[in-house]
Amino acid sequence: MNDTDRRLRVVVWGENRHEQAEPHVAEIYPDGMHNAIRSAIEEHLGERASVSTALLDDPEHGLTEERLAETDVLTWWGHAAHGEVSDEVVERVHRHVLEGMGLVVLHSGHWSKIFQKLMGTTCTLRWRSENDRELVWTVDPTHPIAQGVPHPIEIPQQEMYGEQFDIPKPDEIIFISSFTGGEVFRSGITFRRGNGKIFYFSPGDQDFPVYHHKDVRRVIANGVAWVASDRPARALPTLLRYESGDFFNGGGYQGAMHNRGDAE
Amino acid sequence: MNDTDRRLRVVVWGENRHEQAEPHVAEIYPDGMHNAIRSAIEEHLGERASVSTALLDDPEHGLTEERLAETDVLTWWGHAAHGEVSDEVVERVHRHVLEGMGLVVLHSGHWSKIFQKLMGTTCTLRWRSENDRELVWTVDPTHPIAQGVPHPIEIPQQEMYGEQFDIPKPDEIIFISSFTGGEVFRSGITFRRGNGKIFYFSPGDQDFPVYHHKDVRRVIANGVAWVASDRPARALPTLLRYESGDFFNGGGYQGAMHNRGDAE
Amino acid sequence: MNDTDRRLRVVVWGENRHEQAEPHVAEIYPDGMHNAIRSAIEEHLGERASVSTALLDDPEHGLTEERLAETDVLTWWGHAAHGEVSDEVVERVHRHVLEGMGLVVLHSGHWSKIFQKLMGTTCTLRWRSENDRELVWTVDPTHPIAQGVPHPIEIPQQEMYGEQFDIPKPDEIIFISSFTGGEVFRSGITFRRGNGKIFYFSPGDQDFPVYHHKDVRRVIANGVAWVASDRPARALPTLLRYESGDFFNGGGYQGAMHNRGDAE
Amino acid sequence: MNDTDRRLRVVVWGENRHEQAEPHVAEIYPDGMHNAIRSAIEEHLGERASVSTALLDDPEHGLTEERLAETDVLTWWGHAAHGEVSDEVVERVHRHVLEGMGLVVLHSGHWSKIFQKLMGTTCTLRWRSENDRELVWTVDPTHPIAQGVPHPIEIPQQEMYGEQFDIPKPDEIIFISSFTGGEVFRSGITFRRGNGKIFYFSPGDQDFPVYHHKDVRRVIANGVAWVASDRPARALPTLLRYESGDFFNGGGYQGAMHNRGDAE
Repeated sequence: MNDTDRRLRVVVWGENRHEQAEPHVAEIYPDGMHNAIRSAIEEHLGERASVSTALLDDPEHGLTEERLAETDVLTWWGHAAHGEVSDEVVERVHRHVLEGMGLVVLHSGHWSKIFQKLMGTTCTLRWRSENDRELVWTVDPTHPIAQGVPHPIEIPQQEMYGEQFDIPKPDEIIFISSFTGGEVFRSGITFRRGNGKIFYFSPGDQDFPVYHHKDVRRVIANGVAWVASDRPARALPTLLRYESGDFFNGGGYQGAMHNRGDAE
Repeated sequence: MNDTDRRLRVVVWGENRHEQAEPHVAEIYPDGMHNAIRSAIEEHLGERASVSTALLDDPEHGLTEERLAETDVLTWWGHAAHGEVSDEVVERVHRHVLEGMGLVVLHSGHWSKIFQKLMGTTCTLRWRSENDRELVWTVDPTHPIAQGVPHPIEIPQQEMYGEQFDIPKPDEIIFISSFTGGEVFRSGITFRRGNGKIFYFSPGDQDFPVYHHKDVRRVIANGVAWVASDRPARALPTLLRYESGDFFNGGGYQGAMHNRGDAE
Repeated sequence: MNDTDRRLRVVVWGENRHEQAEPHVAEIYPDGMHNAIRSAIEEHLGERASVSTALLDDPEHGLTEERLAETDVLTWWGHAAHGEVSDEVVERVHRHVLEGMGLVVLHSGHWSKIFQKLMGTTCTLRWRSENDRELVWTVDPTHPIAQGVPHPIEIPQQEMYGEQFDIPKPDEIIFISSFTGGEVFRSGITFRRGNGKIFYFSPGDQDFPVYHHKDVRRVIANGVAWVASDRPARALPTLLRYESGDFFNGGGYQGAMHNRGDAE
Repeated sequence: MNDTDRRLRVVVWGENRHEQAEPHVAEIYPDGMHNAIRSAIEEHLGERASVSTALLDDPEHGLTEERLAETDVLTWWGHAAHGEVSDEVVERVHRHVLEGMGLVVLHSGHWSKIFQKLMGTTCTLRWRSENDRELVWTVDPTHPIAQGVPHPIEIPQQEMYGEQFDIPKPDEIIFISSFTGGEVFRSGITFRRGNGKIFYFSPGDQDFPVYHHKDVRRVIANGVAWVASDRPARALPTLLRYESGDFFNGGGYQGAMHNRGDAE
């Protein structure tokens, strides 16, 4: 029930370090992973979305207040340089998510500052980078994000991410993956935080051409469409006092020592 | 399935400011709210628990590394001085919860740094301190925390806490409250974070004698028993590499640029 | 992500007994409650939906195999005559829901055979028909069904439905209501069953003009849009055998005594 | 918080057909699978439980009203003869679960009448009986049922059960399994229905010695302990009318045409 007359404004955030430092990554993703992700969204959402990119090395990582205010959905891929993301930008992105901006966290973004801050946990997992095959099984066949892909999705080469994945219980588990080694992982999951929606999707890696896989590309585009807010405006949940019988006009909080209305 | 031969070590943390600054609070809670809460736990768990208190004005707020390491369950009541709790202690408590320490967050503790950090949201709500009656309805009648109390619990005088309560979707909603003014609130809820269990329970206030209410006292004791870990030892979830076929001997993470096993 | 080029085919099922037997109901709903509900959906979904009605006293209650096969969403209102709904039709509707037909269950439909069969519980509640005011609070502000209505929705006169509502834990709790008497109720909830989605919404009654309330009408239309399937085709989950390495071509089950593939 | 002075009364229900009809099954389970399951519970719960068995071919399948009234926890294993279980007994067991009797459903019991009735879905899955290895991974490390077993549990030979498992969203997912073929399955899950708790656990099969596996035995015993009710008495949720201001004395329902209190 989004307005059909306004395009979804999507920003694909990329760390863009592996592509610069490692030739084998640059070979797989000559335009950077961010542009592979961007093209996946454009391919599937077409005229419904307007997609741009932002990079770690851009001023303020490309995520100024002004830009976030005009962003409906942000996707996040980081890995080698989580620590270089400034706390100020993380706070800013966090606030925008709580206000209603959609967020899609991809693969190694599980260990980003923004995902950890939204989850409240370590977001650690078990891991191995070999040539495991990943199978992505749908366990919530009614979910919009699961539409248009086979059951299972087969990814010939992929890094292994396994349980225990230290996250809060997801609102929805859409996909569960297995790997050649026998490990399993909750690989497609959703969370609501504040007025915002979050989709985490683990398939995708710098060492393997996973962002060129047609089903992975479809899921990412589905996720972008799903996390977009249906709400009319961005708003941060705020603590307000409401008098009895007045449900709509909250007043400002006066501080803990002025708690009682009858005392003021 | 806890060992029955070891007593639960419970620390009741109290801010203890209203009791010092406001005579009407001191009158209701002459020994401080923390001691009212302590006695509720002792009353119901008896020999099963060993309960002590810790206060904001204690060195390190009474929550040193050594003490937390010997604490099975921590309860948290704060209100006027959330901002005075040091970030270092918050980090420490957070880590212990993820390692498996149980946490019971009470009433205005919803806005504490530790609860916000665990939730990842603002934890704001709508609010009014008048003489509302609160009714606490059980919606999960099978839950251990709901045992031994009437349906509903009637609290004659209480502060109003109402929705939108900006929290992640709880793992379990045990109680939902209504207030004289017609507001509703998810007043008894659980969360797992890391290897730890959390129970938030909103009834309880400095301005009203809620911690002397027999059913509220029972629920708090039930909550303490429930958040206690069944695990044999405290452990922080940690990111480790596991070779194919070896499920039990994880190796240390070598950094993002040494991702591939075959490259090392 | 439904096709925008096909209209949603909605059937509003009505018991239509109170309207015939009780003048005070006929006065509130001169065209029957089913037509009030139908007009609510048409008002909000407009060209997106094609809405018809079916009644208990129609042959096969208006729910033949052919009609259900061409129905995307069914809404259900029953009360006085749950027992008159034939088990055969209940089985048929149940199968269509599992295959992917959306279902919106309204108010006293909580005690219908079809809702009980889908839930597996008694679906009982506490109840009182007086002139309670109902307040409907949103607890999932990101949900599409919650869009376009105030927080709270105020319903001046309404029957009271209160907890314990004996249902499985809902997938999502969107609305929680309070009543003048202080009772609370999980009044807007969702469930997935098989490949189908279900929305239960309690506001609405034969004795009060609730189906003329503008916010209630909006929620019902939102619910109809949300339960509509995103899947390309109707399919019943079926038990099949899959050989190792073949993920897509399941074979028929041969019976329990022919369990082992290697024995055949 | 069960009484420690009363032993848990457990009934292990067994179909006992494969053991009679198939020599290779009788060889693995010379005393029947039901006795293997019984001994697992006795081994781990010891004096805490009093365990007996009931069989399909007993009068009323061994599940008379009197016996169920004195049963705290029922475990269910069936496969070849689901259809021979009488509907009357299924109704009876269903009612007792809603009243508070704990239920542990094992392996092929997923397709039993009682599980389908409680779930409201087909409970189908994908399947293959070869010599797959099953790995059972813990995804809810705080859950009492997950205590005392390795992560993962390794089962050398097992039937494959795979997703789509057509069940409602579980209240808790404790275990997720993978199989040699790459399939995944939500293999340890809980549900509340009415006042009762349910644990479904898939590892276990007539063709393989899974019920002799030490970790599987531990999980079953953990499950039995967990589903046992904490409530003081068995009670079926019942629809009652409550007058305003009286929260505790519900009156009988008078029928749909006597809805309004003011009319009587």
